[in-house]
Amino acid sequence: MARPTPLSGFPEWLPDGRIVEQHVLDTLRHTFELHGFAGIETRAVEPLDQLLRKGETSKEVYVLSRLQGEPSVPGDRAAASEKQLGLHFDLTVPFARYVLENAGHLAFPFKRYQIQKVWRGERPQDGRFREFVQADIDVVAAGDLPYHFEVELPLVMAEALGALRGIGLPEVRILVNNRKVAEGFYRGLGIDDVEGVLRQIDKLDKIGPGAVSALLVDEIGVTPDQAKACLALADISGSDAAVVAEVRSLAESYGAVTELLETGLGELEALVTAASERAPGVVVADLKIARGLDYYTGSVYETLLVGHEQLGSVCSGGRYDTLASDGKNTYPGVGLSVGVSRLVSRLLSAGLVRATRSVPSAVVVAVTSEETRPASEAVATALRARGIPVEVAPRAARFGKQIQYADRRGIPFVWFPGTAGEDGTTGADQVKDIRSGEQHDADAATWQPPAEDLWPRVVPAGE
Amino acid sequence: MARPTPLSGFPEWLPDGRIVEQHVLDTLRHTFELHGFAGIETRAVEPLDQLLRKGETSKEVYVLSRLQGEPSVPGDRAAASEKQLGLHFDLTVPFARYVLENAGHLAFPFKRYQIQKVWRGERPQDGRFREFVQADIDVVAAGDLPYHFEVELPLVMAEALGALRGIGLPEVRILVNNRKVAEGFYRGLGIDDVEGVLRQIDKLDKIGPGAVSALLVDEIGVTPDQAKACLALADISGSDAAVVAEVRSLAESYGAVTELLETGLGELEALVTAASERAPGVVVADLKIARGLDYYTGSVYETLLVGHEQLGSVCSGGRYDTLASDGKNTYPGVGLSVGVSRLVSRLLSAGLVRATRSVPSAVVVAVTSEETRPASEAVATALRARGIPVEVAPRAARFGKQIQYADRRGIPFVWFPGTAGEDGTTGADQVKDIRSGEQHDADAATWQPPAEDLWPRVVPAGE
Repeated sequence: MARPTPLSGFPEWLPDGRIVEQHVLDTLRHTFELHGFAGIETRAVEPLDQLLRKGETSKEVYVLSRLQGEPSVPGDRAAASEKQLGLHFDLTVPFARYVLENAGHLAFPFKRYQIQKVWRGERPQDGRFREFVQADIDVVAAGDLPYHFEVELPLVMAEALGALRGIGLPEVRILVNNRKVAEGFYRGLGIDDVEGVLRQIDKLDKIGPGAVSALLVDEIGVTPDQAKACLALADISGSDAAVVAEVRSLAESYGAVTELLETGLGELEALVTAASERAPGVVVADLKIARGLDYYTGSVYETLLVGHEQLGSVCSGGRYDTLASDGKNTYPGVGLSVGVSRLVSRLLSAGLVRATRSVPSAVVVAVTSEETRPASEAVATALRARGIPVEVAPRAARFGKQIQYADRRGIPFVWFPGTAGEDGTTGADQVKDIRSGEQHDADAATWQPPAEDLWPRVVPAGE
Repeated sequence: MARPTPLSGFPEWLPDGRIVEQHVLDTLRHTFELHGFAGIETRAVEPLDQLLRKGETSKEVYVLSRLQGEPSVPGDRAAASEKQLGLHFDLTVPFARYVLENAGHLAFPFKRYQIQKVWRGERPQDGRFREFVQADIDVVAAGDLPYHFEVELPLVMAEALGALRGIGLPEVRILVNNRKVAEGFYRGLGIDDVEGVLRQIDKLDKIGPGAVSALLVDEIGVTPDQAKACLALADISGSDAAVVAEVRSLAESYGAVTELLETGLGELEALVTAASERAPGVVVADLKIARGLDYYTGSVYETLLVGHEQLGSVCSGGRYDTLASDGKNTYPGVGLSVGVSRLVSRLLSAGLVRATRSVPSAVVVAVTSEETRPASEAVATALRARGIPVEVAPRAARFGKQIQYADRRGIPFVWFPGTAGEDGTTGADQVKDIRSGEQHDADAATWQPPAEDLWPRVVPAGE
């Protein structure tokens, strides 16, 4: 087997990179659980027809086939009914299916988090992978979903991402908008093709206002004056209630105030006001945020890393009135999804963070000779019994090599079991901090490493 | 969308089942890390040619194709070189590839754990899934791997599975054998087709000794007397060094003692002796354990749940001299793999365990009116700041309904924020244990739930 090379778009980390990723995952999970979100995991595959319900995503799907499909046996219903399967490309479609499938066993409103890999057959680019990890939170209701969840969910994400500031994650800005504001404003202007306009507005960051204005007029058929108004709306942003007054005044100047606009502005104001109290400076109303996906019906969210804006959004989502429906019941929801791989990939590639070591072990117990390995194992067992991660040296090499074994992995302590003296007594065990060289007597039943050395930590790269 | 139905072979759990699975995963991970194993995660896909290196597994592979493969553009090297990909069917093949790909960045011997889903296109049966979670530990060396790791690894698994006894996991028996014993014995008998014999011996539990004997004679071409000896060897088991004496005496009676047999017996004795000290009663030498896979070269392991033997092995593995090789270097390894989904599926379906609640929240903060929701949010924030998982009631319904909200989810506490009295003062907050009905004044800055109520726990079903 020749030396294999990485597959483009399928990221993998070395052990110290995985420690960073695992820390991010643990932090997100802990924050989600503190807020009462229940963890679920869905299978990686869905029937292809479910994945293709929204035509626009069809290009992204990886379809599965069995290398040696069994020939169908007459009367074999299992084989006959076997559906074509694809890998899920997000966690929303499987969650919607899970809710419908298990509705009778779930308590609504149901708050869930879900941290899993997803796959998209797209051409890989910087920060855009074919296999990546998402961490989603959603609240889904049976029937009616109160608005306050649209305020709560971005604040949970603000807290989760804020909890990563300590390891070196840059500040985030959660940009929020409300579909009702845009739609109410466009309709007030006399525009009917609301989705068409949103699709063009979504291109603003990529192609700029001039090109978007031209597309609005040429493709969507709005008047130049309407296009100007749409761009003026998209230009508004701010982190307090003043932004709402600004939108209202713009709408008045165009005679475009509608009931839907007012509803949207009321919601946006509630979100911005609550956020300015509970996560000051993090949440910014940005009226150009459109989110291409057509199922959002209220708040929409995108999140930028300050200083890494060109990376694109690292946490997006919104409110949808119909997450799922089985004909009888409709399940509205609101949710956000963190692009964990995109985040971790940037943390690592930009050299923002580092793990304090590449393995869990805080201690290597040295082995004096293979005959006394059981004594070294006994020390390790005693330390582990008190929650200290320990490994025993792989060989009874000279101590210099055993210290080197620890040093190569960043393990801070090497333990030397006491050896039997000529008088038949056994000397005391000793433990060495290989960073300082300090060495002193120690008892495996009581010795404790400093708390910051117990487990590998993730710290800003400079520390 | 009609109500969807489960896909056979792709298990999913309800939220309380996921709490059980998550507890199992956390326990395994914690034990692996205490022993110094570094966590890695590999991509879910491998090039098909890598997955098919061992022909016998070809039937199991799910192959990926993109629904709308891009037409190849002349000169587009990325598209031209795109390899056919399949989902990995175990974690050993991807680990071997990861080791080769990253050999220059890894410190050997390299101890890693890996907990991921794998996929096999097999016909689903009880305890046999198409998508399932495995939890693997392996030690891989560059060049030479000392034998003591073959003793250490099953003992790590004994500890990991033993740590699950408290939640209701039945006792386990780790059955061990050594390829060198079987091969040395067969060769001593004059049999050359060692793998052929092992393949038949592997069927003993399924078809019984009579049928295996017939197959040995008819298919492999051994004499009836050789077949009898092979079955006699397979019949030996025991949990102390006496088992080694029994094998030796059998071999002597057939004149089948070889150097290889003696090496194997020495290793097996070391394993059984160490295990009887460090995990008494857990490890049993069982000479019929063959493991069909031909790459094992030393110890082999299988694990049964006592009382659930018909479930098959829940943790298997062995020693392989060539986990990976790039022509220049060879990497021997030893590892075991827990079938997490099989284990969890049995824990749940046999009603052995339960989660104390279905959500993380220990407390629901009641909402007196939508106007005072911020006061309830403030209580929740204060409790979370001290690590207590809390959610706020979704609606300002009557308190009876809010208590019911907690009760349906098994949340033990409901918190009532103090309300403003007619004299302008605010009453004290109160917290109610809805199991006992006890209610008393409480301060969000200091109140603490009993430790056993802080997070959902997994307990034996009877508790």
